[in-house]
Amino acid sequence: MNTRTESDAFGPVDIPAHRYWGAQTQRALDVFGAAEERFPSALVHSFGLQKHAAARANRACGVIDPRLADAIEAASTELSEGKWDEHFPLSIWQTGSGTQTNMNANEVIANRANELLGQPLGTKSPVHPNDHVNASQSSNDSFPTVMHVSAALELTGHLRPVLVSLQASLDERACAFANTVKIARTHLMDAVPTTMGRTFAAYAHQMAAAISRIDAALPQLMLLVQGGTAAGTGLNAPAQFPELFCSELATGTGLPFRTHPHKLEGMASHDALVEVSGVLNTIATSLLKIANDIRLLGSGPRCGLGELIIPDDGLTSSIMPGKRNPTIAEVLVQACFQTMGNHQTVTLAGASGLFELNVAKPVLIYNVLQSIRVLSDACRNFDERVVRGLQVDALRLATNVENALLSVTALNPVLGYDAVARITALALREGITPRAAALSFGIIDADQYDRMVDPARLANAK
Amino acid sequence: MNTRTESDAFGPVDIPAHRYWGAQTQRALDVFGAAEERFPSALVHSFGLQKHAAARANRACGVIDPRLADAIEAASTELSEGKWDEHFPLSIWQTGSGTQTNMNANEVIANRANELLGQPLGTKSPVHPNDHVNASQSSNDSFPTVMHVSAALELTGHLRPVLVSLQASLDERACAFANTVKIARTHLMDAVPTTMGRTFAAYAHQMAAAISRIDAALPQLMLLVQGGTAAGTGLNAPAQFPELFCSELATGTGLPFRTHPHKLEGMASHDALVEVSGVLNTIATSLLKIANDIRLLGSGPRCGLGELIIPDDGLTSSIMPGKRNPTIAEVLVQACFQTMGNHQTVTLAGASGLFELNVAKPVLIYNVLQSIRVLSDACRNFDERVVRGLQVDALRLATNVENALLSVTALNPVLGYDAVARITALALREGITPRAAALSFGIIDADQYDRMVDPARLANAK
Amino acid sequence: MNTRTESDAFGPVDIPAHRYWGAQTQRALDVFGAAEERFPSALVHSFGLQKHAAARANRACGVIDPRLADAIEAASTELSEGKWDEHFPLSIWQTGSGTQTNMNANEVIANRANELLGQPLGTKSPVHPNDHVNASQSSNDSFPTVMHVSAALELTGHLRPVLVSLQASLDERACAFANTVKIARTHLMDAVPTTMGRTFAAYAHQMAAAISRIDAALPQLMLLVQGGTAAGTGLNAPAQFPELFCSELATGTGLPFRTHPHKLEGMASHDALVEVSGVLNTIATSLLKIANDIRLLGSGPRCGLGELIIPDDGLTSSIMPGKRNPTIAEVLVQACFQTMGNHQTVTLAGASGLFELNVAKPVLIYNVLQSIRVLSDACRNFDERVVRGLQVDALRLATNVENALLSVTALNPVLGYDAVARITALALREGITPRAAALSFGIIDADQYDRMVDPARLANAK
Amino acid sequence: MNTRTESDAFGPVDIPAHRYWGAQTQRALDVFGAAEERFPSALVHSFGLQKHAAARANRACGVIDPRLADAIEAASTELSEGKWDEHFPLSIWQTGSGTQTNMNANEVIANRANELLGQPLGTKSPVHPNDHVNASQSSNDSFPTVMHVSAALELTGHLRPVLVSLQASLDERACAFANTVKIARTHLMDAVPTTMGRTFAAYAHQMAAAISRIDAALPQLMLLVQGGTAAGTGLNAPAQFPELFCSELATGTGLPFRTHPHKLEGMASHDALVEVSGVLNTIATSLLKIANDIRLLGSGPRCGLGELIIPDDGLTSSIMPGKRNPTIAEVLVQACFQTMGNHQTVTLAGASGLFELNVAKPVLIYNVLQSIRVLSDACRNFDERVVRGLQVDALRLATNVENALLSVTALNPVLGYDAVARITALALREGITPRAAALSFGIIDADQYDRMVDPARLANAK
Repeated sequence: MNTRTESDAFGPVDIPAHRYWGAQTQRALDVFGAAEERFPSALVHSFGLQKHAAARANRACGVIDPRLADAIEAASTELSEGKWDEHFPLSIWQTGSGTQTNMNANEVIANRANELLGQPLGTKSPVHPNDHVNASQSSNDSFPTVMHVSAALELTGHLRPVLVSLQASLDERACAFANTVKIARTHLMDAVPTTMGRTFAAYAHQMAAAISRIDAALPQLMLLVQGGTAAGTGLNAPAQFPELFCSELATGTGLPFRTHPHKLEGMASHDALVEVSGVLNTIATSLLKIANDIRLLGSGPRCGLGELIIPDDGLTSSIMPGKRNPTIAEVLVQACFQTMGNHQTVTLAGASGLFELNVAKPVLIYNVLQSIRVLSDACRNFDERVVRGLQVDALRLATNVENALLSVTALNPVLGYDAVARITALALREGITPRAAALSFGIIDADQYDRMVDPARLANAK
Repeated sequence: MNTRTESDAFGPVDIPAHRYWGAQTQRALDVFGAAEERFPSALVHSFGLQKHAAARANRACGVIDPRLADAIEAASTELSEGKWDEHFPLSIWQTGSGTQTNMNANEVIANRANELLGQPLGTKSPVHPNDHVNASQSSNDSFPTVMHVSAALELTGHLRPVLVSLQASLDERACAFANTVKIARTHLMDAVPTTMGRTFAAYAHQMAAAISRIDAALPQLMLLVQGGTAAGTGLNAPAQFPELFCSELATGTGLPFRTHPHKLEGMASHDALVEVSGVLNTIATSLLKIANDIRLLGSGPRCGLGELIIPDDGLTSSIMPGKRNPTIAEVLVQACFQTMGNHQTVTLAGASGLFELNVAKPVLIYNVLQSIRVLSDACRNFDERVVRGLQVDALRLATNVENALLSVTALNPVLGYDAVARITALALREGITPRAAALSFGIIDADQYDRMVDPARLANAK
Repeated sequence: MNTRTESDAFGPVDIPAHRYWGAQTQRALDVFGAAEERFPSALVHSFGLQKHAAARANRACGVIDPRLADAIEAASTELSEGKWDEHFPLSIWQTGSGTQTNMNANEVIANRANELLGQPLGTKSPVHPNDHVNASQSSNDSFPTVMHVSAALELTGHLRPVLVSLQASLDERACAFANTVKIARTHLMDAVPTTMGRTFAAYAHQMAAAISRIDAALPQLMLLVQGGTAAGTGLNAPAQFPELFCSELATGTGLPFRTHPHKLEGMASHDALVEVSGVLNTIATSLLKIANDIRLLGSGPRCGLGELIIPDDGLTSSIMPGKRNPTIAEVLVQACFQTMGNHQTVTLAGASGLFELNVAKPVLIYNVLQSIRVLSDACRNFDERVVRGLQVDALRLATNVENALLSVTALNPVLGYDAVARITALALREGITPRAAALSFGIIDADQYDRMVDPARLANAK
Repeated sequence: MNTRTESDAFGPVDIPAHRYWGAQTQRALDVFGAAEERFPSALVHSFGLQKHAAARANRACGVIDPRLADAIEAASTELSEGKWDEHFPLSIWQTGSGTQTNMNANEVIANRANELLGQPLGTKSPVHPNDHVNASQSSNDSFPTVMHVSAALELTGHLRPVLVSLQASLDERACAFANTVKIARTHLMDAVPTTMGRTFAAYAHQMAAAISRIDAALPQLMLLVQGGTAAGTGLNAPAQFPELFCSELATGTGLPFRTHPHKLEGMASHDALVEVSGVLNTIATSLLKIANDIRLLGSGPRCGLGELIIPDDGLTSSIMPGKRNPTIAEVLVQACFQTMGNHQTVTLAGASGLFELNVAKPVLIYNVLQSIRVLSDACRNFDERVVRGLQVDALRLATNVENALLSVTALNPVLGYDAVARITALALREGITPRAAALSFGIIDADQYDRMVDPARLANAK
């Protein structure tokens, strides 16, 4: 393999000739090796956005000269557009500040900028990775900034629209099933009549709340610590740099990023991301309920609850030919488990900060971004291939409604709780309908019964 | 033991004569036994508030007659004031809807109301526990209502004010230490000069954010499912009951409770409480950081970091006489661990709902209320006995500032990153001050150095 | 309130006159206040056992004089028998070494021993709480010793026998249901015929494995750090003290306690208890599966799966009269959630050790002991009131077996997978039995079908 | 793209012509899409081992003809050797039984076997993926078998040897530091003298226990459910198949795999893997303690505890030139957090089984295998680049020993606890050495003091 030699403060390092990274990235690769867990491209691209905004702010502050700024901005834009992804060889298993990936970004951009300025790779001149690309910055502020930017972009660009669509589909099903009377189940046991529409409206409401939870967490993510530099002191950054940076980034992303009022806080801790993870955990809680309900209500086809019919997906068993399973709901369930476990990792990472820096940043943001992605993907499929195609088994529902005992709860106001208890006990013991049991006591007549115990009315079917 | 006999739909039950509970409570006690984990009095008292508001709403709707309503309201008020706590013998280890504790409340209030109306215990007349005390209600809506009410009261009445006070104390220390220069630590390693004031301002900021997180979660807790009755259908409750109920409860508590727009959602799931638990988890994350920092900065007295002096609490070791330990900070740390583990329990409980009812309500609310209480207690002590009395060891700080290497980072803009790296490497290798190392290279003179590398200026000390 | 005055190194303290605790306990009470979370009596009694064994070892080593040893041993025995429980006023929210509860034990025993020797409370003479009761000990070794002793006693004395009994009951049901053919469910969907006996045998196997897991964790719990004294150095303890202590404690408890080969390890970390908590977490995982299955298989009575009939417990709904719910299974489910959350707390506490001492001991052992107790209680009730009384609905099972599609999997070896897939697809599409579908293809005759697709044979019913 | 057409029970499917997978894999890819989370090659290769052993057992039972068996075995061996990794396009986000990856293995092996027999891809003849490659098998038993096999291979082949090496390195450091006296820290505060050797011996002991924990969990992993086929019934598998299979696999892997005594248990639940994850969680707990201690003891270089010197790794800060950070220890810390969070995912997945099948298998095994890998990698680096090169700062240690107060604990047996408390209080208040304080009371002379309070003797230095 052809190599070139770059130097840093610790001496010379050999680097594959066609790679745009530099000495510190190469050293990190040698120290840490490669591993499967990579920062998603969303994070790498966010570094492009971040370096671009920093270069523009530095230019405005007079920290770097316009010719260099031009080159850095051009290279950063390419990075944000995905052109240099494969020049980020490091895994997340690196130092806890994310420094090596910040260095990697500095080095790739410096090399590319120098190339644009007619220099070969490895010159560090005229654009130096630390003095120019990283000017007015530290990993201490750049990496947390990129954590917030990438999480905000992923939440608003992926998870949120997926949940909006899922909510709409659930609402649509709620309307379609508004008059479909079914027997409710509390404690898994037959309860009073309700409608399948109400069931789906509850799911839709959970998704509406999920969207609100994301929206409520976003303002904290909009606060960026860029400008805090080393340990939140702001050392070596011009006073107006933070505001200029946020303004540039807001322009570049369309999101209302603002400078964090207390930068140390957002480096030494990551409470805002722990909060986001808590929101994802809550959303997973909601989705697990919905997926489990639909799986169970769709169980059968002949020995299960069988009230819902889940669209077929063409997949089957390796031994039981033709068996159909709720595979996509199972993916959603598993994605929820992953998110809940990731929340644990995020909490541990978030709680581990000491002194002026939390050094569990890579694992923290990796887990947050993974949760967002797997929930997004699983929900999209669940929406498109399951929810929208759900049907009810009308015959099964009607039979259940006819057989169920506790519709007689409607008689409480007339007969009193204790008398109704005797009716249900008799019906259960004798295996008869509650109507027959009620009439046998001679305390209510058939007309009155049928008027008061009308399932559709009890269910408030529309 | 003297007993009286009460009957329910399943037959007669013997009950200790002086107890106000009834047949279903006694059966539950026989089935489940007693256990250490009890609902806190906050929950029992909230049942008093809930039954009172329900009675007033029922009276207004004409569901129960004013004479009975008077008696129920009087008994409910006594319950909310703590008069009947010892008549709630059940533990949290009961059915997952909390039904037995709702029944317990119904029975105690019915017995007490009948007593006020001149009847002996056990008559169930004229006030019947189900037909009157529980009128227009189900455990399905009453217990979730009480979960929200008790959590809201505990959050607003205990945790929030404690955090407000802790934030104020941290802010006060931040002001007191505003000019106290110290060496920041990133990756636990010496970094650039900062101030102790900045450190405490970051803690104070975390507490301000914690308070905001509570405030953001409260609106969801204000939504009450009362009126949903069985399985969210509203069966047997008048149409105006939910609004009347919330209005009465808002008056009784001073909190802006509102009727839940989709009652099934708040029975079948408890996402709002999972969200609250996520907030508590985030707050625990913040507090753990603060407590750990203060413990470590206060370590010593002679072989530790020794930058902070933690007030003495008079407690010592059983074998090392006179040893002083950061005991109160350790309580806070442990309270955070409990809260984080409880969050796991709450998440599991919250995710376990199936069909029209989540049946892990008792364990869910028990853990939420425990987290609120233990965080409140631990923070109050930490505030009063630790934070307010914290002092710095000025000599230690000054020595550290003088010795630290990386103040020379301030020279980057002049000398460039690579030259400064050579300075720090030399200082470290030779065990000399960075000033001596810098001057030895002959690239900067002493005046310039002292002007540029002034720790107080670098630290932005005020 | 009458008080007496005791003194310690920090000065005089007023103590309620009738209380046997001393100055350090009183100071701790003043500092930490009271709280609901108390160490269970199992831990307090274990301190009696520990101080008794220490006194006997000290006597044998000549560290304390026989007259004092007699009194200390007598007082310790009383403590282990529960006579002094109410003289332990502190909650678990104390210093992370458990020092205050060790001090409490030292003080109560010293006061009681002095009383036995004719002295009033508070003299600290002739028996001194530190010099004699705590002789050769530190909280650093005594509290971890008591953590292991109490956990071992609770595991072997409570949880293990409950699981043995539950396993037996499940095995008994497995035998009773050995020939009861049912349709298996994979992915919640109808699969091939199996027996209810196999289902219960799997549960019984899980309980057998649970017992093995406890047995595998016990040897680690048998290792005691007593004798390590301050920071595991053994300072001030005679060389033969650790062995003598363990021998005495083994005699007193009947458990094979041994001295830990590396005492610092068992103070600075609590990996053995994290492991135990992992075992409890695994057991909770098993129990959750069993409880959920039984709840769902028993769902109905008319609109659920209805294959199992769960014994009635006499408890019902507050609004739906006569409704019967699987309340005891719900308690077990909730106990599992608590255990899983506690495992998180234990993991966090266990991972938090720094340097020579883990200081999250109180919260760690509190959660371990709570998990053991709540699992024990919930399993006992589940065994006695649910499992032993479970019955099947034979008619429902038979109907399901007759209707199920995938029994034709038995034809794979003869017809091949693809042909069988066509049979099930036809049966499902046309709503006919798989037998009819198979015969309609003309590739198998009725006799052959009935011989090959005999559910009882396929299910391997015995 | 060139495609070929294959058919399954649901009709024809187009597949890229050069791919060896078949119709069900292609359908799954269309349904689920691709995602980053792939089963590691260890799992795919284990499928090769599993299908090979199954073919050999089927041949021995006369289920498949030797010519087909030859081809299947050859193809399976290639699979186990990594030749077909890129023909496994599916992510872990698939049905919860792992069926699609089992199908994928069946299809790739069938196509490759047919190719070896001279047929083009897609013929499904003479080797059929279900009738021959999957003969006597179901996904229900094959996938759990592969879960156990891959976990066992990774534990024994990667994590265990890494821990053995780490333990040896820690032991070696313990020996090297056996006479290095230092001040212990309890509650983070200065305690009595100990040795650095004792500290490292405790770490080594933790690793020895970690290895024992792995060894204790392996027997459960050796139990394989192969032969249980659909829902644990054994349908369509010869009676002797399970034993033959395990015997073949034991030969192929060198691990003592045995047939599970109750196959349903190992399909419907994954308690054995939850237990393994609990072991990994405990190991992470240990490693976190060790990594945190070493990071903190190595903090500085001038303002930290500075007792250990961590080898330099050549990486530095982006803004503070020459700053050295404990990067590799931070990776280990983050790997522990990931493992602890994964344990949560595994617990949730393990607890989610219903009826005859746990359908969270992919996410469960993915997390187990990830934890094993990230712990292995992080420990290896920590061992090789940190532990082996650790040195002490002898001067710092000696200064600390001289200054520390609580060495006077050694005087307790002579002076009594209360007198010693007065000595330490005086020394602390006056800022003098404990020796000066002790002598000032006139209760002990200098010779006696120096003899009794000799740090090296107190520390039991060897």
